[in-house]
Amino acid sequence: MFVERKVKDFINIDPLQTGGKLTEDARRMLVEWGDGYSVCDFCMGDLHGIKNPPIADFIKDLAEFLGCDVARVTHGAREGKFMIMHSLAKKDGIVVVDSNAHYSTFVSAERAGLNVVEVENSGYPEYKVIEERYEDAIVEARRKGDVVLAVLTYPDGNYGNLPDVKAVAEICHDKGVPLLLNCAYSIGRMEIKAEKLGVDFVVGSGHKSMASAGPIGVVGMFEDYAKVVLRKSERFKNKEVELLGCSVRGVPLMTLMASFDHVKERVKRWNEEVEKARWFVREFESLGFELLGEKPHNHDLLHFKTDKIYEISKKVKKGGYFLYHELKKRNIHGIKPGRTKSIKLSTYLVPKDDLRKVVQAFEEILDKYG
Amino acid sequence: MFVERKVKDFINIDPLQTGGKLTEDARRMLVEWGDGYSVCDFCMGDLHGIKNPPIADFIKDLAEFLGCDVARVTHGAREGKFMIMHSLAKKDGIVVVDSNAHYSTFVSAERAGLNVVEVENSGYPEYKVIEERYEDAIVEARRKGDVVLAVLTYPDGNYGNLPDVKAVAEICHDKGVPLLLNCAYSIGRMEIKAEKLGVDFVVGSGHKSMASAGPIGVVGMFEDYAKVVLRKSERFKNKEVELLGCSVRGVPLMTLMASFDHVKERVKRWNEEVEKARWFVREFESLGFELLGEKPHNHDLLHFKTDKIYEISKKVKKGGYFLYHELKKRNIHGIKPGRTKSIKLSTYLVPKDDLRKVVQAFEEILDKYG
Ligand SMILES: Cc1ncc(COP(=O)(O)O)c(C=O)c1O
Ligand SMILES: Cc1ncc(COP(=O)(O)O)c(C=O)c1O
Repeated sequence: MFVERKVKDFINIDPLQTGGKLTEDARRMLVEWGDGYSVCDFCMGDLHGIKNPPIADFIKDLAEFLGCDVARVTHGAREGKFMIMHSLAKKDGIVVVDSNAHYSTFVSAERAGLNVVEVENSGYPEYKVIEERYEDAIVEARRKGDVVLAVLTYPDGNYGNLPDVKAVAEICHDKGVPLLLNCAYSIGRMEIKAEKLGVDFVVGSGHKSMASAGPIGVVGMFEDYAKVVLRKSERFKNKEVELLGCSVRGVPLMTLMASFDHVKERVKRWNEEVEKARWFVREFESLGFELLGEKPHNHDLLHFKTDKIYEISKKVKKGGYFLYHELKKRNIHGIKPGRTKSIKLSTYLVPKDDLRKVVQAFEEILDKYG
Repeated sequence: MFVERKVKDFINIDPLQTGGKLTEDARRMLVEWGDGYSVCDFCMGDLHGIKNPPIADFIKDLAEFLGCDVARVTHGAREGKFMIMHSLAKKDGIVVVDSNAHYSTFVSAERAGLNVVEVENSGYPEYKVIEERYEDAIVEARRKGDVVLAVLTYPDGNYGNLPDVKAVAEICHDKGVPLLLNCAYSIGRMEIKAEKLGVDFVVGSGHKSMASAGPIGVVGMFEDYAKVVLRKSERFKNKEVELLGCSVRGVPLMTLMASFDHVKERVKRWNEEVEKARWFVREFESLGFELLGEKPHNHDLLHFKTDKIYEISKKVKKGGYFLYHELKKRNIHGIKPGRTKSIKLSTYLVPKDDLRKVVQAFEEILDKYG
């Protein structure tokens, strides 16, 4: 059975997709290492220690890239979050999280048997994390149980907001709570150094932001917590319990490795991406759409309030799906079918010419139905 | 960065590798769906419900293939085991497992906070699971805590033994304990129907036995336990907690789907594979090696006691590694470097001509050093 990927040659502005496109090297790696467990050809019992292919060296480089003592690959950002929460979990344990957090943060906590206390955001139109509120949230949470961890989403997947990490880290540490920074949308796009930012854990997403085949993620931490999170099995002394021995025993890891040089380079050009995103915001604003989230915006993930699209959807036969079909006709993919009141997109690594086509498409659509 | 897979064109008899080689369709799928989260192009919030590519249909077919009500894809057999154990876990909970179980069964239990009580095997030379001993083990375990699950490895990864599942299932169910069958080495090789075998859960390994890129596994169960194991998040009603919402959000799933027709066909030819394995056993016995595990053997995973190799290793300069180097010269891969007292290999889908070369290689090596 073979299934064609229909949108392969479309202009893709899906926030999930722009940072996960493979490099040429990664594409070659896929075929070379596609068979089953091929990365385990020369395994001596621990995935992260494999020398051939050079996984062990990569893991060391990765730790440095993340500004951490220790790094691991996981099946994704969420599996990294779960692994950390599960290791720190206690009866009546609580995680304090920003209310912009991804659903997988809440579900990870639920799976780990932890309750969640949320730090409210500033609401419409910027929905900013209010850093100082971490203090109150921790105090409030402590009335109900033991605060085992705080999580900050950097940026969140809804507005692309980048809160002040250091401010949150300081509060958490003053209160004796470790801080996990969820960098699913930043590691591989921007420079993220855990040490500089003062956080205890970082997690990233290979398929989302590191030019890798899914599913794969990364996690970074320091020696203190590594002893807890990466504890070894009592019976099998070389197996890390939270990784069930080995995590990404297959080809996504090889694509992550293949793209790593490219990723290290591209984070240096992050400013250009922010510039391009801001240009796109101006263009979209001139069509009458309103940016939600931080202004000026500091990330390629853009969320627009699109009243005009919503008004049209109420009048047309296809309802909310008219937009999807109009974009599809123009080989543009990535706006969730049926969404009209607001839409999310990403400009990351999308050539400016293609973005111009996107702007033009929306202009035409508004004209056609306006 | 590109890394060549050096042993790509070798005769590969590594038990980890013979069942995970991709089909041509799977290889094409890799390239087509390699980018990041491409399988999520048309996701409506649940990986297992995606219609384009036809994941939802595949998951239904998979459940039927496994003889279950419900199937899911996981990151591997071990992640399936953990998910089940974690769902059933209780304070002072115990899992009863056969002592041939894979390390990942023990580590899954450890991660889920469960204690393990082992069912002893028959020892040298057959190391058979003694099915009736599950009864005593459950009784003994109940003195220490609550038995939440029994696990049987089918076959185990050390001897390739296939115990009498129905006998174990009957005992477990008489005692009110659900049974998980670990089919990492059987699903995708042999016909496995959970219903026919009378087990509550099956897990399989895509990269090990289903011609898939790693990491991916499958799990099958029935409605009763699906309610527990696949429970939905309280807050996010369409997210399964144990899957953290979505599991294999990437290309390994597409390779599993691509190879599925082939896998369904190949399980019908399992008898031929058993015949070939038995022929190989006779050849190896005639070289003076002794098969460990069940006789006659019912699986392609073969474990030989190799006294002659051990004797040679004590005399030669390279010590235990001489065998690895001799085989490498002959383009044969898959015997763990350094092992001499006993070796493990698999004949699965290895052409008979290649197996003849393996036999000949050992013959030459014994002659050379004998
Ligand atoms: C902020 C954020 N964190 C985590 C995730 C999940 O990433 P992964 O698939 O690597 O678990 C997402 C996915 O959309 C996200 O937006
Ligand atoms: C019997 C058995 N179960 C489970 C596994 C692990 O499979 P997976 O990599 O899919 O977790 C193995 C791997 O060697 C095995 O031999």
